[in-house]
Amino acid sequence: MKPNGEDEEAPAGGPWEECFEAAVQLALRAGQIIRKALSEEKRVSTKTSAADLVTETDHLVEGLIISELQKRFPSHRFIAEEAAAAGAKCVLTPSPTWIVDPIDGTCNFVHRFPTVAVSIGFAVNQELEFGVIYHCTEERLYTGRRGRGAFCNGQRLRVSGETDISKALVLTEIGPKRDPATLKLFLSNMERLLHAKAHGVRVIGSSTLALCHLASGAADAYYQFGLHCWDLAAATVIIREAGGIVMDTSGGPLDLMSCRVVAAGTREMATLIAQALQTINYGRDDEK
Amino acid sequence: MKPNGEDEEAPAGGPWEECFEAAVQLALRAGQIIRKALSEEKRVSTKTSAADLVTETDHLVEGLIISELQKRFPSHRFIAEEAAAAGAKCVLTPSPTWIVDPIDGTCNFVHRFPTVAVSIGFAVNQELEFGVIYHCTEERLYTGRRGRGAFCNGQRLRVSGETDISKALVLTEIGPKRDPATLKLFLSNMERLLHAKAHGVRVIGSSTLALCHLASGAADAYYQFGLHCWDLAAATVIIREAGGIVMDTSGGPLDLMSCRVVAAGTREMATLIAQALQTINYGRDDEK
Repeated sequence: MKPNGEDEEAPAGGPWEECFEAAVQLALRAGQIIRKALSEEKRVSTKTSAADLVTETDHLVEGLIISELQKRFPSHRFIAEEAAAAGAKCVLTPSPTWIVDPIDGTCNFVHRFPTVAVSIGFAVNQELEFGVIYHCTEERLYTGRRGRGAFCNGQRLRVSGETDISKALVLTEIGPKRDPATLKLFLSNMERLLHAKAHGVRVIGSSTLALCHLASGAADAYYQFGLHCWDLAAATVIIREAGGIVMDTSGGPLDLMSCRVVAAGTREMATLIAQALQTINYGRDDEK
Repeated sequence: MKPNGEDEEAPAGGPWEECFEAAVQLALRAGQIIRKALSEEKRVSTKTSAADLVTETDHLVEGLIISELQKRFPSHRFIAEEAAAAGAKCVLTPSPTWIVDPIDGTCNFVHRFPTVAVSIGFAVNQELEFGVIYHCTEERLYTGRRGRGAFCNGQRLRVSGETDISKALVLTEIGPKRDPATLKLFLSNMERLLHAKAHGVRVIGSSTLALCHLASGAADAYYQFGLHCWDLAAATVIIREAGGIVMDTSGGPLDLMSCRVVAAGTREMATLIAQALQTINYGRDDEK
């Protein structure tokens, strides 16, 4: 990362400039709502109320983002977490498509664990154009635009160049399935990386923010089974524009709908991680 | 946690006031040095240099803290990470004793993963009097004084009242030993908690900051084998003053030198966690 002051901002303009600006403004507004909900939740004494609150805030934030975007871009399509939970299909057509996670790190949100983000990705012709991720409590705005670099609060992001797993900080998430067989595979994957002498393994409870740490060079690799296209879309552009690799856990090209991913600063590192992993089957987002 | 504005600051005065104020000032100064080192490290391209840098900064910060305290309080004793690594004995006598970790989260520091803290604890008659922990990158100052409450940047801290493990966010750390038998026990403990349906498990790479999350109510339990008295001393006062429990993994009273701990918002939760764990033997700080 270049020191402060030397950073060049990406040049203005481009075909999706208005969409990008809308995404930034909505991520910041959504972040404000989430911060407010987190401070209000401090007055709620039972976790049951907290669980209600998260659903309410998730709905509120997703509703805000989608309704504003629909007003401004009526021909665009949407893939979003709450809508998918309510049965909407996740299909990426060639149309301009917004891929939205209103609150990434829901379990953190419920507990007021301060690692919570809004994620807004945008694809055209099935290719990711830009991604905007806002770390709500630390007020860090991560952005990436295809061909125009990745930034955090205006500072250019660069991935680490690490290729040696024994010097790598590796991030992962447990995933939503907690049956004994899935847990055994999750723990066995962690064991394989620790046996390979990964310098450290971290689990922070937000896929998008873990991927942002990777983009900033603060971690060297990330893998997960059981995440969704709305966890991946925005972060994928940010990582690629920071010079990193996002691929399938098989070692092949990323499939946004496959519910699994390996990301790293270098192709060597991503390949090493992919080779070490056993597959955990979570199905596909576009077959649910 | 009470909403902003209603917080009462702990009253001034008390026998160790001057020591407490010195600890706060030194933690803030140390934090500045660490932040500067983190931003300089961004210009260092190899991890070997990064590893040198961490040793250098660890020494620099510990040297600053101890030399300043020795000047002001020449009769006091010290237990500190770098001194212990150089062979100094960790013995807690009845004398006023400072227990210092100059950089907690060393692996995070090397990778510039922004979860790094300074920890300064203080004990008299073998009883912990106060603790000061400074989250260097987020500039959050956690303090606790015996009988006078725990605060983060002036806001009073309160632990969560959760007693149900299935609603708990549980924090832990991997620990320094990475031989296959130790890793198996570490992963088996994590598996037991996930089988007990812990809502989430997090590994953030800093024991002291994980314990601060517990004190703030953002997590419900913490356990670890393989941490040291300088990871625990300051955090223990902060958690107790926030209303929480710090105990041995056997379920008995905390032994600061035993290299193991369970902490929770409630005694019920701490006991449940302790009962679920298999012991990992790391020896004792005062027998090394």
